[in-house]
Amino acid sequence: MHITAETAVPAFTGTVPPAVILAAGEGHRLNGVNGGSPKPLTPILGLTLLERAILSCKEVGVLEFYVVIGYHADIMIHYLHVLEQRLSVMIQPVKNPDWREGNGSSALSAAPYISRPFFLLMCDHLFDPTILQLLLTAGKNTTDCLLAVDRHHGRVFELEDATKVQLNGNDITGIGKEKASFDAIDTGLFLCQPSLFGALEVAKSRGQHSLSAGLVELIRSREFRAVTIGERFWFDIDTPKSLSRAKRTMLQSLSKPVEDGFVSRYLNRPVSRRISEILIRTPISPNGISLLSFAVAIVGAVTFCLGGHAWTILAGLVIQLSSIVDGCDGEVARLRFQSSKFGGWFDTILDRYADTSIVAGVSFGYWLAHPHAAVWLGAIFALTGFIMASYVKKEFVIRYQSKPPSGLFGKLIKRDLRIFAIMLGAIVNLPYEIMLLVGLLSHVGIGWVLLKGHRQMR
Amino acid sequence: MHITAETAVPAFTGTVPPAVILAAGEGHRLNGVNGGSPKPLTPILGLTLLERAILSCKEVGVLEFYVVIGYHADIMIHYLHVLEQRLSVMIQPVKNPDWREGNGSSALSAAPYISRPFFLLMCDHLFDPTILQLLLTAGKNTTDCLLAVDRHHGRVFELEDATKVQLNGNDITGIGKEKASFDAIDTGLFLCQPSLFGALEVAKSRGQHSLSAGLVELIRSREFRAVTIGERFWFDIDTPKSLSRAKRTMLQSLSKPVEDGFVSRYLNRPVSRRISEILIRTPISPNGISLLSFAVAIVGAVTFCLGGHAWTILAGLVIQLSSIVDGCDGEVARLRFQSSKFGGWFDTILDRYADTSIVAGVSFGYWLAHPHAAVWLGAIFALTGFIMASYVKKEFVIRYQSKPPSGLFGKLIKRDLRIFAIMLGAIVNLPYEIMLLVGLLSHVGIGWVLLKGHRQMR
Repeated sequence: MHITAETAVPAFTGTVPPAVILAAGEGHRLNGVNGGSPKPLTPILGLTLLERAILSCKEVGVLEFYVVIGYHADIMIHYLHVLEQRLSVMIQPVKNPDWREGNGSSALSAAPYISRPFFLLMCDHLFDPTILQLLLTAGKNTTDCLLAVDRHHGRVFELEDATKVQLNGNDITGIGKEKASFDAIDTGLFLCQPSLFGALEVAKSRGQHSLSAGLVELIRSREFRAVTIGERFWFDIDTPKSLSRAKRTMLQSLSKPVEDGFVSRYLNRPVSRRISEILIRTPISPNGISLLSFAVAIVGAVTFCLGGHAWTILAGLVIQLSSIVDGCDGEVARLRFQSSKFGGWFDTILDRYADTSIVAGVSFGYWLAHPHAAVWLGAIFALTGFIMASYVKKEFVIRYQSKPPSGLFGKLIKRDLRIFAIMLGAIVNLPYEIMLLVGLLSHVGIGWVLLKGHRQMR
Repeated sequence: MHITAETAVPAFTGTVPPAVILAAGEGHRLNGVNGGSPKPLTPILGLTLLERAILSCKEVGVLEFYVVIGYHADIMIHYLHVLEQRLSVMIQPVKNPDWREGNGSSALSAAPYISRPFFLLMCDHLFDPTILQLLLTAGKNTTDCLLAVDRHHGRVFELEDATKVQLNGNDITGIGKEKASFDAIDTGLFLCQPSLFGALEVAKSRGQHSLSAGLVELIRSREFRAVTIGERFWFDIDTPKSLSRAKRTMLQSLSKPVEDGFVSRYLNRPVSRRISEILIRTPISPNGISLLSFAVAIVGAVTFCLGGHAWTILAGLVIQLSSIVDGCDGEVARLRFQSSKFGGWFDTILDRYADTSIVAGVSFGYWLAHPHAAVWLGAIFALTGFIMASYVKKEFVIRYQSKPPSGLFGKLIKRDLRIFAIMLGAIVNLPYEIMLLVGLLSHVGIGWVLLKGHRQMR
């Protein structure tokens, strides 16, 4: 079956294409870290490689999967059935008895199931799911096969093993592992036309069974183009070293450069990433982690109530821990593809309640030594500042449908810094005074947001 | 100049059309209420009739005005110059020496200035500006002249004076004051093609100088269609009676049926409307009124601090007054066409600060008689409930881009009811206890919003 560009099914026009995932290999180089199971079952940050591949596709709307298996097909079929139930997607196992011949043979075995554009990916490649979105967008205007390529080959690990790509503009002019000169690296992520199968048949008839050999046929018929991934991450996982390198990069990608304040970026995130790495191996849900962080804050607040410098220091450290754990819910959610609007909403509300208990605790501790009503008026002053610092921005977003004013002041009234300052205050036995100061700063910040927002939007 | 449908300028396609306003008449029946000035200068709720006509057009983007004047042209030219500066619009006075002949003659005198679709309105008609939007939308698909008509003629005041319209579907088949049977009433709001001028010329050549006579010509050439205004309000102001009736309806239209809670609707609005009616005659800005309401709340809060039942009752009444005045900023802004996103934002933030001072005041008053730390923990509990009841909804709107869950509970945690309950509590000398209760209710409401939002959006 050879389908030319003329007879090809039109490129993706609306419904999301299915995905073919090549998961037939043995991956013996990873046996040390996956206990000898087939490579697709290798765990990384709480999910197997295959699970990550499927969930990454699901992020862009793919619900139909054809997973080509070979090595330990029995184990794989059972596992695919489990995944199908757990991830609420359709998974069709595709057995390829000739999987040892090459990955072209594996891709070809999916041909009977596919008659429209489809994603093609390797189960041992980890990647930023937005790359699939890039392919989808590019696929709207072409009937060519598309390959996501990385032009920064300096950052590619184990370059000698990588498949190199030669380009003329976005047209792919050469592909293979042994190219001395090349322009980019094959990321293993494709948006293909069924014409690929024809190309693979041609290569097969010449005794060539690799995917690259089929792609060379596509190059001959000028139906093969590249889509550049920019700075997005991707990894080909072949060795324990590449696995741990991918893990590190994925954890680092959890920071939110725009939203995170100073303390988040330089103190909380580095620690919370390590905690998330542990939490992801437990069954705790992201919302459960939000509740955990809230519970830790309550413990801190109660500890403040005990008075005395030693308890105060401990309380300060506990609320800082709570602030750190507060980052883990989102991190675990993103690592597990479990991010939800409700999760973000719930977390934000709990944060405000946590702040309330911390203010009450700090003030109670101070009141024990200074039993004046003014202590509590100060508490109310600070608390309003803390909650309103967030409120004023939310209200701005709703009214103007635009990002709230940002700048140094915007960062100064963020929660990470507030908790950190009170923690430092606790260590020098001035938590209440520092809380008042941060409260004052928050009110000034609120005024600044109002003024700046007014000017910006006039 | 007779322009047929074939040669007519295409209907409105993007840029907002200019407006021709007929303001040539004397309006002697209103002399009792406007001190003998020309009718367009008759004041209603702080603005003159002409100012309202221009600002209503400006609401839908009109910036170019041709105002036809006749009676006391010198006074009118001066006034138009003042308006042009104040309202930042272009106003071209169009003198019609023959204004006494009829309003068709006045409309015709704008012909030299107009070569594209235009709004035509009578300066003595008050109306809901969204009617102009209806005309604009309908005008996108036609090159006919459009007239906004009211099908509920039961509600039309001084029906004998009204211009009646006969319809066949949306086609206008007859128009005039003396129609015994009719389907709708002419609201005096048109989106016209320049072909109207041709029709008016034809009528003039027959010695007919009324607008209706020109419109009859349009009916003959089948270029005249109706747009139904539904429940939107409009008034033809001819007599002091119709003026005061229009005033009443405009004030009543200030309620926000969806947003207003129970207390707002049945207590606050009826009073705030009366206060707004006074405030609109002063130079105070809507933001100034927000600050005034805030200041009144502070006075109430401080009065609570004095302790004693008499002061507490007074304090309760003062905060209720503040809650009432809190409705006036929006009312005055809408009546003066001064609504702004910043105004809404600023008011919402001040409301939260007002709540904070009220909680502090009530708690301080209670603490004077019951000097325990628990009083203040209760204050913090209530305050968090009050602020978060609003916060939880804002955050929902941002996350889900959708209206927050509503229902009985949603109404129960609104500010109007909260302040009213504390006021009642003050009267029976239990303001603190009621505040705690309302705080508890708010926390329950927050939980309800979270739960309902979660279910709704799953």
